[in-house]
Amino acid sequence: MISTSHLEVGQQPSGEPARVPVITVEGQPGGPRVYLQANVHGAEIQGNAVLERFLALCRARPPKGHITLVPLANPIGINQKSGEFTLGRFDPISGENWNRQYHFNNRDIEAFCHTHLHLSDTEVTDAFRQQLTAQLAARLDSPWGVKTGQHMALRLQQMAVEADIVLDLHTGPISARHLYVPEYARARAHRFNIPLNIVMPSDFGGAMDEAAFSPWWQLSQQFAELGRTFPVQVDAFTLELGSQEKLDIAQAERDAAGIARYLEVMGCWPEGTHNVAPETQYACALEHYRALYSPCAGQIEYLAPLGQPVPAGAPVVRIWHYDRLGQDTPLFTEVSLPCDAVPVLHFASANAQQGTELYKFLTHTEAL
Amino acid sequence: MISTSHLEVGQQPSGEPARVPVITVEGQPGGPRVYLQANVHGAEIQGNAVLERFLALCRARPPKGHITLVPLANPIGINQKSGEFTLGRFDPISGENWNRQYHFNNRDIEAFCHTHLHLSDTEVTDAFRQQLTAQLAARLDSPWGVKTGQHMALRLQQMAVEADIVLDLHTGPISARHLYVPEYARARAHRFNIPLNIVMPSDFGGAMDEAAFSPWWQLSQQFAELGRTFPVQVDAFTLELGSQEKLDIAQAERDAAGIARYLEVMGCWPEGTHNVAPETQYACALEHYRALYSPCAGQIEYLAPLGQPVPAGAPVVRIWHYDRLGQDTPLFTEVSLPCDAVPVLHFASANAQQGTELYKFLTHTEAL
Amino acid sequence: MISTSHLEVGQQPSGEPARVPVITVEGQPGGPRVYLQANVHGAEIQGNAVLERFLALCRARPPKGHITLVPLANPIGINQKSGEFTLGRFDPISGENWNRQYHFNNRDIEAFCHTHLHLSDTEVTDAFRQQLTAQLAARLDSPWGVKTGQHMALRLQQMAVEADIVLDLHTGPISARHLYVPEYARARAHRFNIPLNIVMPSDFGGAMDEAAFSPWWQLSQQFAELGRTFPVQVDAFTLELGSQEKLDIAQAERDAAGIARYLEVMGCWPEGTHNVAPETQYACALEHYRALYSPCAGQIEYLAPLGQPVPAGAPVVRIWHYDRLGQDTPLFTEVSLPCDAVPVLHFASANAQQGTELYKFLTHTEAL
Amino acid sequence: MISTSHLEVGQQPSGEPARVPVITVEGQPGGPRVYLQANVHGAEIQGNAVLERFLALCRARPPKGHITLVPLANPIGINQKSGEFTLGRFDPISGENWNRQYHFNNRDIEAFCHTHLHLSDTEVTDAFRQQLTAQLAARLDSPWGVKTGQHMALRLQQMAVEADIVLDLHTGPISARHLYVPEYARARAHRFNIPLNIVMPSDFGGAMDEAAFSPWWQLSQQFAELGRTFPVQVDAFTLELGSQEKLDIAQAERDAAGIARYLEVMGCWPEGTHNVAPETQYACALEHYRALYSPCAGQIEYLAPLGQPVPAGAPVVRIWHYDRLGQDTPLFTEVSLPCDAVPVLHFASANAQQGTELYKFLTHTEAL
Repeated sequence: MISTSHLEVGQQPSGEPARVPVITVEGQPGGPRVYLQANVHGAEIQGNAVLERFLALCRARPPKGHITLVPLANPIGINQKSGEFTLGRFDPISGENWNRQYHFNNRDIEAFCHTHLHLSDTEVTDAFRQQLTAQLAARLDSPWGVKTGQHMALRLQQMAVEADIVLDLHTGPISARHLYVPEYARARAHRFNIPLNIVMPSDFGGAMDEAAFSPWWQLSQQFAELGRTFPVQVDAFTLELGSQEKLDIAQAERDAAGIARYLEVMGCWPEGTHNVAPETQYACALEHYRALYSPCAGQIEYLAPLGQPVPAGAPVVRIWHYDRLGQDTPLFTEVSLPCDAVPVLHFASANAQQGTELYKFLTHTEAL
Repeated sequence: MISTSHLEVGQQPSGEPARVPVITVEGQPGGPRVYLQANVHGAEIQGNAVLERFLALCRARPPKGHITLVPLANPIGINQKSGEFTLGRFDPISGENWNRQYHFNNRDIEAFCHTHLHLSDTEVTDAFRQQLTAQLAARLDSPWGVKTGQHMALRLQQMAVEADIVLDLHTGPISARHLYVPEYARARAHRFNIPLNIVMPSDFGGAMDEAAFSPWWQLSQQFAELGRTFPVQVDAFTLELGSQEKLDIAQAERDAAGIARYLEVMGCWPEGTHNVAPETQYACALEHYRALYSPCAGQIEYLAPLGQPVPAGAPVVRIWHYDRLGQDTPLFTEVSLPCDAVPVLHFASANAQQGTELYKFLTHTEAL
Repeated sequence: MISTSHLEVGQQPSGEPARVPVITVEGQPGGPRVYLQANVHGAEIQGNAVLERFLALCRARPPKGHITLVPLANPIGINQKSGEFTLGRFDPISGENWNRQYHFNNRDIEAFCHTHLHLSDTEVTDAFRQQLTAQLAARLDSPWGVKTGQHMALRLQQMAVEADIVLDLHTGPISARHLYVPEYARARAHRFNIPLNIVMPSDFGGAMDEAAFSPWWQLSQQFAELGRTFPVQVDAFTLELGSQEKLDIAQAERDAAGIARYLEVMGCWPEGTHNVAPETQYACALEHYRALYSPCAGQIEYLAPLGQPVPAGAPVVRIWHYDRLGQDTPLFTEVSLPCDAVPVLHFASANAQQGTELYKFLTHTEAL
Repeated sequence: MISTSHLEVGQQPSGEPARVPVITVEGQPGGPRVYLQANVHGAEIQGNAVLERFLALCRARPPKGHITLVPLANPIGINQKSGEFTLGRFDPISGENWNRQYHFNNRDIEAFCHTHLHLSDTEVTDAFRQQLTAQLAARLDSPWGVKTGQHMALRLQQMAVEADIVLDLHTGPISARHLYVPEYARARAHRFNIPLNIVMPSDFGGAMDEAAFSPWWQLSQQFAELGRTFPVQVDAFTLELGSQEKLDIAQAERDAAGIARYLEVMGCWPEGTHNVAPETQYACALEHYRALYSPCAGQIEYLAPLGQPVPAGAPVVRIWHYDRLGQDTPLFTEVSLPCDAVPVLHFASANAQQGTELYKFLTHTEAL
């Protein structure tokens, strides 16, 4: 029922392959195809522990459906050190974010809707998935080659494109747990039991979650223009499960249960199979998810605890200017916000340039 | 006639400012406003030498117009070392390319054209420049702060927005000299005497050249839709003047003369003031400017000399697999191209991953 | 009584100087000369806050003696980012530790003792300090130049060499507070109120504390061989005040008080002027301060809380092998120690190679 | 006669092994055991090509003896990118040079000489080699683990310790070919046909060549003190075969022939089997091999061609200060040397801090 293999996603200069583990849970028939991956950003370790705890849940109560787990999904990023830390957010050669290189070209979607307008939902779904798969194969097959990060992304995407549900496990720098929720899937998001939620539009920007759902959402929109109701066939979420460079097994167990609770709704288990103490949930629209950039350089005292609402005007950081020690000028600058907010994450270092992204906040929060 | 000052473009964690030198040549009246900058990518040193040689030309034969020179335009990028090399193409924190953070929002352009439809060209130009300036000031003034790279870019852009001509001096990694030419300015491009030319559309993608000309090109397009002919008021080019991490004073002198020759057309000097031995010029459209990504990892022997046409099917790189030494499998992979091409630049290292960008080529070349 | 200035310790590629703030507290006569510096390793921010709190103590109760404070002592290291973190432990070009480049050459010490054997302690002290000062000046004056890190070190050392007491404020990666104690100064070390203490021999290895005390200790040894008792004239300690990349103002206040308590013994204040709740103190010899290197690669769960004794054989880390997920091989490796130990610090990342330094421990602990 | 295998020298965080290829040429009996490795510094590619060409020589004319070739000897360093370049000289976590972590402890050497004083040369050699081997095994077996770089070094050293001849193939940054020659092996060094030679003492400093010969040299010295003549049993050289990040197959062929010519003297082939056009050779003692550190920051024009003598007082670099453009202060600083010299290598970047190592020179040159 559980089988494992390895998939080559790249090759390192020394000639060694860059391979990812692929674990397959073949559950009872009747459930969805699910794809979960973790650690596409090299320093974001925690998702691996969540996958391990989630596999334990699958062992304890075998699910319906077909589940694929890919921990350590970016070996190149994981193996790149810089000082003690893992330089894992972007390709060290080009600076490109590892999670912005997935592929989708919507050029043919209008033609597709016209030619498939009168086929059944299942036929449409199969044909469209085939088209997406063909697109990935064609991209990988370019006579000009494929860039390192995109090659890796495409190899992962070839697995994800088969799935009805795609969950991409990340973390922030120093971060509370938060969730990116595509607007159309909002009703199901609370099941993950993640306290902070960002509701996002359904456009494609290169990330895994968008690459998974946006084609289907665009298909749905395009059919709607032709007068046909065609539901979005794929759910996809990015889960940010705490801080980078950390492993918290107890929290991993709770988040694995949250994922299982969400998958109950999707048919993997009967409702109520998994439980976890509910947390207060906040949400806001992506446009209201705001970064605070440092107005000056200095050494940072982070004042606003993550996950706890902070009112407009209250100081959220104190920026120390130790270069002015002993002088009469003020030794620190305090920064506050123009509106109420909930801090989601903050910078991982106490050492900031002018313009460093110090914090990110939910603002104009609403119920999930 | 020549004056100098410094402009603060950021602040380093230690509290020290990041400042750029600003040199102003106040020429005789009647000429254009010209803005030249160099070294926005930290490793791309050569442009500084070109500015130095260009200033010598201005001293030898005072130009008409107002010329601003900004060497060492990105002190944060210039000061960031990683091993012996300068990690200067992107922000070491975020991976964002320093030359993709300039600002332009075309939201108001349609309304602007309607309200300014019946004003004179000069009035339109003044009003539009004012609007661009206001946009930059508003962006800098955000209560949420401005990201390090964008803050620096905006401060440079505040100078560039005043100019009729904007030249941004870069280099490639290991590179022949090449030029990015906006389609509408194609007729003047040959004056720079740069052998390889990429003709690009006039959209905005965040680079300095685009930030300088694209608003004016979009304005021109918008007016055209309303039936008014309004010429693009600003010329902007990105010059790639050789290889990074190198200083070649003799070549800098020739490229300074090429710039002066171009500026003759724009009114800074009488035609024929400056001369330089003409070079064979190739051009292609941006969509035909192609990267070759390594099909496998290995140690790279670059076979195709830069600037010299290579036919389809001829090997351009030999990728050595020294991990197979002593085995019966082939010790190297040779790669060729599906079409004729002119090599523009190649990767700076002999050590490549699968997917490393090995070369860039002009293909489907045409006359400039 | 308090004055400030700046000292140039280097020059950045952009031409900007690398300068350090120098704050001088001119106290009443009769006290020692004291030199304190912080942040020579760029990510080790906390010492700056301790200096700030210490200056407040000096303001509240003016000390005897002459005190020099240098926060942000390594602007080049502080300004070098790599990802979100500060790559501040070593020169990014050469890999050399910023705190191993101080200078002392003991070649002339035997001759010095012979020629100064019959002078008074004060005369010897003055002459030897003069010789050390001359050695630094000669090194800085080399016609071959001086390496970046050594140039900076020498400039700081020129201030420190004037002092009777030198305190160099550092932090570990993720770290409990600990102190490097030269054997000869052991009796005074408990005054800092730092829980974990490493008693070290008095040789010179290139660090600031050694550069400050080792010449005087060697002088004392050399005189002893000639039958003269000459006390070590300089006290020097390296204080490791918690974790890198963090600012904890409350703890800084307690550690500033600990420093003041130590300086009471040295004559800056009357005994009992400053107080702080005493902490349990452990000590061991440097040879018993042991690093644990990871026996294999993997994702690390740090099990042993810092500062709390752990018995031989108890697991201190669990190394997860998520690449084996779904397989029958063990999913983790646990590591324990061959002897009782007190964990002092651990690696800052949960992502480790084989051979990564996971923890450092006091072993064979004894009373301070 | 030629066989290949792989040796694991470490493990990467993703769980993938770090393995090196090991090629064995089993020649006819009667020749020495030879060990050659390349690319211990990750950016120093050229040695791999030399090993490939050398293997071709072995195939063309089978040698006497047993030859082991290890290309790509440091997969961790080779795979570590930082920008386009390979950050391969030091461990990115600790800054430690990969070629300073070999092991030798001379503690027992005096006792060994006493107990083996009256054994034959062969018996002594075998016993001493056994002791060195045991030392490596004990080090690898520490209950506290072994640091990443030392673990890799020890695994390589376990192969090298078996050899009579050890050649470690490196390159400089931008560099002429040069050779480190242990004083005792000076007479044979010219056979490599390398133009620039540094004659070094025979102490141990952690590099592979020293780790290979220094124990045997110390043994020889120790026996000499006891009145026995015991020749140094191992020859070891570090060859620096040009510039990093470059592959030059034609030069590799010439250097492979140089190595073969040296090995003729050692018994692998009859004298005169291999030939190569002789080059002018310079040598100096290690203490006269001098680095020039930049007296100020700026952009560097390297004036002195590598390998060509430059007289005292002649400018070797021009340091441009583009931050002073348009001002009256001098735009550049020229640096010359206090004595005649031959430039061996220069810095790989045109962007320098104060104190950057700009050049290295042979001075006080003599015949090899």
